[in-house]
Amino acid sequence: MSTHTPTPPFYLGVDVGGTNIKVGVVDDAGHPLSKASLPTEPRRGPEAGLETIAAAGQQAVAAAGLDWKDLRGVGLATPGTMDIPAGWLLEPPNLGQLWYNFPIRDRLAARLGIQTVLQNDANAAAYGEFWAGRAKEARSLVFWTLGTGIGCGIIIDDMILEGAHSHGAECGHIIIEMTNGRLCGTGQYGTLEAYAGAKSLIARCEEALAAGRSSAISARLRAGEELTPKLIADCAEQGDSLCNELILQTARYLGVGTTTLMHTIDPEMVLLGGAMTFGRDDNPVGRRFIQELRDEVQRRAFPIPAAKTKIEYASLGGDAGFIGAAGCARLKFAR
Amino acid sequence: MSTHTPTPPFYLGVDVGGTNIKVGVVDDAGHPLSKASLPTEPRRGPEAGLETIAAAGQQAVAAAGLDWKDLRGVGLATPGTMDIPAGWLLEPPNLGQLWYNFPIRDRLAARLGIQTVLQNDANAAAYGEFWAGRAKEARSLVFWTLGTGIGCGIIIDDMILEGAHSHGAECGHIIIEMTNGRLCGTGQYGTLEAYAGAKSLIARCEEALAAGRSSAISARLRAGEELTPKLIADCAEQGDSLCNELILQTARYLGVGTTTLMHTIDPEMVLLGGAMTFGRDDNPVGRRFIQELRDEVQRRAFPIPAAKTKIEYASLGGDAGFIGAAGCARLKFAR
Repeated sequence: MSTHTPTPPFYLGVDVGGTNIKVGVVDDAGHPLSKASLPTEPRRGPEAGLETIAAAGQQAVAAAGLDWKDLRGVGLATPGTMDIPAGWLLEPPNLGQLWYNFPIRDRLAARLGIQTVLQNDANAAAYGEFWAGRAKEARSLVFWTLGTGIGCGIIIDDMILEGAHSHGAECGHIIIEMTNGRLCGTGQYGTLEAYAGAKSLIARCEEALAAGRSSAISARLRAGEELTPKLIADCAEQGDSLCNELILQTARYLGVGTTTLMHTIDPEMVLLGGAMTFGRDDNPVGRRFIQELRDEVQRRAFPIPAAKTKIEYASLGGDAGFIGAAGCARLKFAR
Repeated sequence: MSTHTPTPPFYLGVDVGGTNIKVGVVDDAGHPLSKASLPTEPRRGPEAGLETIAAAGQQAVAAAGLDWKDLRGVGLATPGTMDIPAGWLLEPPNLGQLWYNFPIRDRLAARLGIQTVLQNDANAAAYGEFWAGRAKEARSLVFWTLGTGIGCGIIIDDMILEGAHSHGAECGHIIIEMTNGRLCGTGQYGTLEAYAGAKSLIARCEEALAAGRSSAISARLRAGEELTPKLIADCAEQGDSLCNELILQTARYLGVGTTTLMHTIDPEMVLLGGAMTFGRDDNPVGRRFIQELRDEVQRRAFPIPAAKTKIEYASLGGDAGFIGAAGCARLKFAR
């Protein structure tokens, strides 16, 4: 995958999502040597999931020209509530009830015969960007994963903020509007996710249209297109005022949440990743989005962090999870 | 000060406040052997301040039956904006402009001839409770200092969260109400301090009285008493409904902020300290206050941290700052 000379030892990173299981062999310098992806099919349950991880891992190990015995360890990233030190999934809603209360770390280690470490998927992605991505030169990072939910990972000096009860960096669920706040999918009111998640963007669009706002998006919806962040971004790119405004509003909500984290973690860098990043720096909508977030931070934050904190798009895309998971294995098993 | 056998090495902790400079000699186990306090008189400037620290330190060293050369190091806690790694005060509003941009750490080290470390005062107090106070058995802590401002300190596994720009744990300034939020003394809107600080409690009381609410406090004010959190607490203790409600409202605001921190830091323990703690566990108002905060957390937070996070009053009172400052010196100079 690159002209980089692989640096042993090697790690397998595994990123279990609701749709796909992504894996890759990563070297000691954070370079992926190979990657593979297979459908998660979560309804088949966790035993089938372990076999899928093993099959994808086999593809990646072979593609890297290695054997399983060449791996120093496995890093496993999963969604949902978990007990990280114990290596258990607790109640991962994206995977379904069959996966609840499953000792996935030790079961995978036994299946593969390789020592394995478990990490939350958003934390792992943050560590990927910190170790080998856009935040490589930073000593601390807040990483937002923007999508249906708002994920977050926090890294401080190579320490992944897991929390005392594996709820560290669940910052989609910080409260930004305590009075009359919007309802979040988790049942909480006024959380960041209730304002800045994809579902909220869609809901706010529907509300504006229902309130009689005119927008080019109405014709697209009448033509049968589905209301998604992508459609809103398309219309914004074509100059639609409502869609543009909805996206900038989302950025301002994230600016509020980012300010709270700058006054709590005070990281060197804040990165934005995930699906809902509007084409990132490659697209005028993506550029306006991040600039509006930065502007809100300038309006809200103390002068010193406002002036010094770097706010950028992430660089590893969908690979951040397995790269970071491999990095977690390296943190634990390097020596 | 105790029957504890002093454990060397010894450290001097210094807590510089806007009113008093508190110092104490603390042993390796976190026990204070002596303490002393002198007025800060900040308008005399930082050079005079260094002499006051030296004089108070001399009292404490003598009271401990020690000599300056018996000290392994000095920990210095100060308020306001600072550059912790550089050891500089930047713009501490409580001390005034004469203290701005002053290299206080190295100047104090030179004055005393002892290696010195600088820390933010709220961080130092948090570390005091973590090292030697109520959170002694916890591995992570969020510590609220409640008073005119809302101070905060965050400790994770012996790591003091200083932040990349010395703005870590400035959680009085997290945003809890992004729309139409109250104005904070810092010029920000909707911050926790704007709702839960002493000034807000007083302002909310004035607003309720101006809106025609009846309260026993009106007669006390007409009799010439000053409107303070203490007076509001007195009236609440005597059964006044408005004052009781204002205090419980303050607790709910802090519950919102605490929930945000439980979804960010996910600490093992949250402690409340500072002047505005309504008599703590020793007083029915203090007991209702912390219970209302806990109840708000139960309503707002995810089930696991809501069930497991301990929320208590701190135990070291006004000594937390110098004890924690000494602990910071120990962290840095123990070996």
